[in-house]
Amino acid sequence: MQTLALVSITLCLAVNVWAQKPRHCRSPPLVVGSLTVSAREGEFFAEAKYTYDALQKRVRFREFGCNNSQSFHTDKLILFRKRVMYDISYHDHSCKRIPLRVHFHPMEVPREAKLLSEVVLGSSSAPGQGLLVNIWVGNVSETGGKYFSTFTEFGCLPVSSIYYSNSTGWVMTSFFNNMNGIGNPEDFIPPDFCMRKENEETEWGTERDFFEALF
Amino acid sequence: MQTLALVSITLCLAVNVWAQKPRHCRSPPLVVGSLTVSAREGEFFAEAKYTYDALQKRVRFREFGCNNSQSFHTDKLILFRKRVMYDISYHDHSCKRIPLRVHFHPMEVPREAKLLSEVVLGSSSAPGQGLLVNIWVGNVSETGGKYFSTFTEFGCLPVSSIYYSNSTGWVMTSFFNNMNGIGNPEDFIPPDFCMRKENEETEWGTERDFFEALF
Repeated sequence: MQTLALVSITLCLAVNVWAQKPRHCRSPPLVVGSLTVSAREGEFFAEAKYTYDALQKRVRFREFGCNNSQSFHTDKLILFRKRVMYDISYHDHSCKRIPLRVHFHPMEVPREAKLLSEVVLGSSSAPGQGLLVNIWVGNVSETGGKYFSTFTEFGCLPVSSIYYSNSTGWVMTSFFNNMNGIGNPEDFIPPDFCMRKENEETEWGTERDFFEALF
Repeated sequence: MQTLALVSITLCLAVNVWAQKPRHCRSPPLVVGSLTVSAREGEFFAEAKYTYDALQKRVRFREFGCNNSQSFHTDKLILFRKRVMYDISYHDHSCKRIPLRVHFHPMEVPREAKLLSEVVLGSSSAPGQGLLVNIWVGNVSETGGKYFSTFTEFGCLPVSSIYYSNSTGWVMTSFFNNMNGIGNPEDFIPPDFCMRKENEETEWGTERDFFEALF
């Protein structure tokens, strides 16, 4: 009887440990948020606001930054289902309509990623002082690059990403101010002047996901 | 009467906004935690566990890492009040006792730091999915360096730090698994073999705080 109880307890513990192991997860389908990207020892820096809709496979991305001491601003609307990206400038009401070859890849922990560690940012000693996150590591076979991606344990939201390849060097991305939902559905409607004029059509390469497509 | 009510509401709002502005804060006096440091595009990488006691001004710091493909391990006990640092090796029971010139500097947002922004890591859309943090920026006049330090809004715990100077390049530090309190008070008692033998005595320079003293 005692043996049976011991086996039961052991099995319960095993199931519990298995259940608590961080899993590959996918971010919520509708998210708005911000991010910063820095690369080349700070020579490239950009901050962006994004609106992400995995249900209808579309992303709006407004970015400003500095590249080799040159400031820049971009505003992109990507409609993956329609295979088109709009490069929008409200400043001079110009709009480039660019056919898109790449497919939509949702924000998620890649399947091939391995768990490096689970840690608390801040402190777990009191409510509101800490954030439980999982750090995943993996390789991008196409580029020979390596990445470390951090996602929240609860909610599966991206927190940061460090990517290294010989061609890019270290690229660091930090995500913040994420919210579940879409603040303004009109983010996904191209402005009128995009409809009136169809400019240069440039085909894209084989970018892997929408973040890589954007930088 | 309406004007008075309006003035009262305005004053209340003003006080509320003032009260909500992030302030320069100091970390709790007793903390245990971990950190990682990377520099020189990843050529230097280290992970450390620390035990921090601001009441009695002492720090224990166990670190392992890799510098130019050479792995290393250090174990340091710093007793600022006694102006001594022990460089401990349990492996061969050796111990260097090093006189210390630097003063103790608590973990805190430096007074001269300016608030860059307040953001939520993760998401504020659901409990447990986000962490409210403040990002502070400042200059280190002695080194001509610049830093970006991130502390939690609640609890004032360090989350990350980015430091740049011409001599060091970019140095990135991430803090995690912090807990309020001291897990083992014996962390601050030097081992017996440190008492038996007093080795090389080297005087230190003018390091600024205990983190700079450690790297």
